[in-house]
Amino acid sequence: MGSLQNSLESIVEVPVRKVLGSAIARERDFLAVEEPLEIRIGYHFKERPMAKSISLTMRTPGHDVELAAGFLVGEGIIRDPSEIVEIRHLGPAARNEVQVDLHPSVDIDITRLDRHFYTTSSCGVCGKTSLEAIEAQGAPGIPAEGFAVELSLIHSLPGLAREFQPVFSQTGGLHAAALFDGQGALLSLREDVGRHNALDKLIGRQFLDSHLPLRHHILLVSGRASFELLQKAVMAAIPVVAAIGAPSSLAVELANRANITLLGFVRNNQFNIYSAPWRILS
Amino acid sequence: MGSLQNSLESIVEVPVRKVLGSAIARERDFLAVEEPLEIRIGYHFKERPMAKSISLTMRTPGHDVELAAGFLVGEGIIRDPSEIVEIRHLGPAARNEVQVDLHPSVDIDITRLDRHFYTTSSCGVCGKTSLEAIEAQGAPGIPAEGFAVELSLIHSLPGLAREFQPVFSQTGGLHAAALFDGQGALLSLREDVGRHNALDKLIGRQFLDSHLPLRHHILLVSGRASFELLQKAVMAAIPVVAAIGAPSSLAVELANRANITLLGFVRNNQFNIYSAPWRILS
Repeated sequence: MGSLQNSLESIVEVPVRKVLGSAIARERDFLAVEEPLEIRIGYHFKERPMAKSISLTMRTPGHDVELAAGFLVGEGIIRDPSEIVEIRHLGPAARNEVQVDLHPSVDIDITRLDRHFYTTSSCGVCGKTSLEAIEAQGAPGIPAEGFAVELSLIHSLPGLAREFQPVFSQTGGLHAAALFDGQGALLSLREDVGRHNALDKLIGRQFLDSHLPLRHHILLVSGRASFELLQKAVMAAIPVVAAIGAPSSLAVELANRANITLLGFVRNNQFNIYSAPWRILS
Repeated sequence: MGSLQNSLESIVEVPVRKVLGSAIARERDFLAVEEPLEIRIGYHFKERPMAKSISLTMRTPGHDVELAAGFLVGEGIIRDPSEIVEIRHLGPAARNEVQVDLHPSVDIDITRLDRHFYTTSSCGVCGKTSLEAIEAQGAPGIPAEGFAVELSLIHSLPGLAREFQPVFSQTGGLHAAALFDGQGALLSLREDVGRHNALDKLIGRQFLDSHLPLRHHILLVSGRASFELLQKAVMAAIPVVAAIGAPSSLAVELANRANITLLGFVRNNQFNIYSAPWRILS
């Protein structure tokens, strides 16, 4: 459990007035911390070192190195930890800026990155283009057979994740992403005010530890399953994605195309299967 | 209630397997539609017409014109409906691309827009910079006195909004933003897979109807209160923001600076007051 989130800098205590019916009491409350993080890459162009800002995200501080690595993996910019020379904090107090220095041999398509500046993880103008763009990003692919899990194991995931969600239990203000192995053992959990950040932090750690692709793993996310979350799961090759909340139309479409088993409303001994149902053994 | 969301294109029906305990049943389910929308501006530079893409957001189709207008207001790009000549759909099937043609007299700071391409509504690298950037964006300002509401009125808001949330009740997959007047009458409600889109649609409609600034109004949002949502409330000068979920640290900080009364966990006859508590009359 060494990879569970350190909650020290993720929470701040504030004064609050708590209203119950018509009674008002002065108390203290804990908030999830939200701060911007700029992600930069250092790269080489014609043998000259360059740097470029590629994302600014509102995130909960902590695990910034993993967040930066996971973001680059999700965008298809890097595929192997050997492509990274160093990930370091820059700027005032080394707090809200992270630079990923890429190996000089890494070939970066800056034009494509420029497009990403305004696409914020979406990749085209219609849904179909979005799906094709992800396939073109070099996703490792998930076989249409193989990994499957027992139905009863799915029911157990939310309870297991809740036990290890330290900040959410205090603030109610964080999204979580949790990774399980095929036997339902919790391998890692990350929390963040942004659901995409929680998943980037989770995948970033696995990437840096050379555990990608995650072809025998289950991802649980605390909220809804959007296109963006499925895109990140595709790039990490996670075959089962379970959401406590509802999926969107485009998330289901992408899951179908990528052979991901997408589960929604996973709670209270119930869930819905939206794609690749054969992975769920009853 | 003519401004309530038309739900026809916001929902799609899909086959689903519903699991309850160990039983699996084949059924139909409704999903919230998620599709990309590219927002472009048409402007004049040295009397020559130009166009530029300024945002690509994953949104639920419907109310795209309001979404584009609200986005530009939130970013401080436009301040009055007279600055817009026309808002029109472009591209294949006129579905996923909207262009806002600005009046030739509108002076656009393209350099600042370029920065926005990667900041996605955040405006700087540390929290303090973010807060100052919003103030510099020309927010209309909210007086530190004046508008106040009865405590009991706040308790009634979630129930009123739920009655008019047609898509969420079918899919469980949408965020909502609802606008009330000072007497607690529901004026408008918008739903979207993205919480910032729901708010942009809501504010965009009010802007196009020349109702901004909304200095005597209450905003209710279905999820958590992030920095980004508060930023949009600041630009529309909404003095009371109530969230069903938790606020983030930076949302509270911005609310304090902008004289916004920020309420969290508004449900079950309870809520927390995080800033400007004098607006809540008990």
